[in-house]
Amino acid sequence: MTDNTFPVQASQGTGDHTSQMAAEIAMQPEALARTLDTMLPLRPEIARLAEGRRWVLFIARGSSDNASICARYLTEIHAGRSAALAAPSIPNLYGAKRDLSDTLAVAVSQSGSTQEIVDAASWAKECGAATVAITNIADSPLARTADLALITQAGRELAVPATKTFTTQVAALSVLVDALAPTAGTLDAAFARVPEAAAAMLQTDGEVLDEMVEVLSKTDEVLSSGRGITFGTTLEAALKLEETCLRPVRGLSYADLKHGPMAIVDAELATLLVAAPEGPTLPGLIDLANQIRSTGSPVLGIGGNGDFREACDLAVPGPDLPEALAPIVLPIPVQLMVERLARTLGLNPDAPRGLKKVTQTD
Amino acid sequence: MTDNTFPVQASQGTGDHTSQMAAEIAMQPEALARTLDTMLPLRPEIARLAEGRRWVLFIARGSSDNASICARYLTEIHAGRSAALAAPSIPNLYGAKRDLSDTLAVAVSQSGSTQEIVDAASWAKECGAATVAITNIADSPLARTADLALITQAGRELAVPATKTFTTQVAALSVLVDALAPTAGTLDAAFARVPEAAAAMLQTDGEVLDEMVEVLSKTDEVLSSGRGITFGTTLEAALKLEETCLRPVRGLSYADLKHGPMAIVDAELATLLVAAPEGPTLPGLIDLANQIRSTGSPVLGIGGNGDFREACDLAVPGPDLPEALAPIVLPIPVQLMVERLARTLGLNPDAPRGLKKVTQTD
Repeated sequence: MTDNTFPVQASQGTGDHTSQMAAEIAMQPEALARTLDTMLPLRPEIARLAEGRRWVLFIARGSSDNASICARYLTEIHAGRSAALAAPSIPNLYGAKRDLSDTLAVAVSQSGSTQEIVDAASWAKECGAATVAITNIADSPLARTADLALITQAGRELAVPATKTFTTQVAALSVLVDALAPTAGTLDAAFARVPEAAAAMLQTDGEVLDEMVEVLSKTDEVLSSGRGITFGTTLEAALKLEETCLRPVRGLSYADLKHGPMAIVDAELATLLVAAPEGPTLPGLIDLANQIRSTGSPVLGIGGNGDFREACDLAVPGPDLPEALAPIVLPIPVQLMVERLARTLGLNPDAPRGLKKVTQTD
Repeated sequence: MTDNTFPVQASQGTGDHTSQMAAEIAMQPEALARTLDTMLPLRPEIARLAEGRRWVLFIARGSSDNASICARYLTEIHAGRSAALAAPSIPNLYGAKRDLSDTLAVAVSQSGSTQEIVDAASWAKECGAATVAITNIADSPLARTADLALITQAGRELAVPATKTFTTQVAALSVLVDALAPTAGTLDAAFARVPEAAAAMLQTDGEVLDEMVEVLSKTDEVLSSGRGITFGTTLEAALKLEETCLRPVRGLSYADLKHGPMAIVDAELATLLVAAPEGPTLPGLIDLANQIRSTGSPVLGIGGNGDFREACDLAVPGPDLPEALAPIVLPIPVQLMVERLARTLGLNPDAPRGLKKVTQTD
């Protein structure tokens, strides 16, 4: 399936769409609707495959790794199972075997052909894991390797920075985790609202985004912070800013930031805080916004509640979704900001320097 | 126990010791010898506690988190058990319970009184985990919480940047992992050589360190990369440089670097590569050194073999130890470099801006 059947829609109030990245950002409401329609009925099959598997091991790199970090929190909080992120060098370079008969391995790769991920998924299967592939390409080596392949319905993505393939990955992972939860089904009403929440994100106030772009265009460095279920969104924001806009950006959890790197926060650096609309990490992030503003560093906020946005210098709202599903569409305002920033800096958002669509590492 | 009984020894060829940090760096051969003498006989007790526990969950923040990342690789490679790093917000903010009856939880904190870590360790115990504390303070809340406390013998550390408390943590973690390995004991000869390897690291060529300091003092940004068993050392190098020298530093694995951030590597940025003296990640790191040099970014190498150092612009050797134990003393040349850089920049290495010795996060 390609996206050719879906017209590119310019979102209102966000300026001209001059890039493929912008066009792909705008396709997300439909891509998410298709992906959720495909995934939600698979929950019983996922639950059967995962039966008796107490651990979930995510295998991924790059943006897919950030999607998996969201899923890792969700697995432990919403599904009550333990989760870990694999280090692919351990199977692929060290050749270390172990018993994974208690594990559901979930390998995530947009292309399904990053060899490192395919190899690690095959290794997990040999070690006794039940395996799921989450990929955008049905006929890919990764999909063929796994016991069960969950194919995101993003359509083909041409711009190098992952946008719709990222949010559809997060959607697929959220369905997978929901299938593992003893409370499976309680999020159904919220899942149904995801496409409209994505559409609402496309209406993010363009004037505020332009003000954020102005702040970011004037600094040599950006710090991105967040915590909990949306921490993966924080890391994805950092990666997108870095690869697309060639700005050095660190993504750090709220707590890790306080353990050292806080020393370098000052007026020379802009801080991006990414927050869910609700949840137990919000009070700490509001305190962090106040603390960082006191250093002179301008604080840009994405999401959160009214108090959070009040504590930031500039902020745009996130989705009206429960915290558990917020990471699916919370990246959208970040994507809009990054695409505008790249163009403001005279860069091509579709083809960042030095990067290819499919990264091969050994 | 305090360090007052151990005279501060100036290492040869590394300039004047004008800071407490430098004095504490020099104490590491003895601190490591004491720690290993204390820990090695505890292996049977550790093995009994871990019996039937297929997963190891490390609970830590900051430098202790970096030590735990080394231990995570070692657990999976050397001990053949699965390992994960805990996200403390999951128990502490989300209050999520799960069944950890298959898990050995290892909580690591220099002070043993970072509340977030104490709380997460108590939570793990309530969830059914067997618990080990690794701390430098015997009479600490963390030591009292755990089923077994492994007390590092670093003596009191006064400088804010962790040096001897970090390397002794890595030593304690290495013993713990060795106790879990089916091949327990095969590293004994190497363990015995750790103190002399640490002493050799104190003799690192001061002229090369000064040349590295000159490179680092001229750049606004540093990238630190590595892979595999010494990846935690890479992250610790980044944290030390950042908190002590107020330089923005990102620590990225070799593979994650290629998935995006490589876009920003250019002559404006210095790259620090940290490598073990042997092992399967070395060829990739040599390729990476060559690739990064071709961008104009100066490459500083710590450790590796002759070919690795040849591929760097400037390099100092690491320890003559097997890869598995290299992370215990490989941080020492980095510490020496960081301490010199701080002084060159007119900063106080003992008390970085905005940091306290014990960090409390909620």
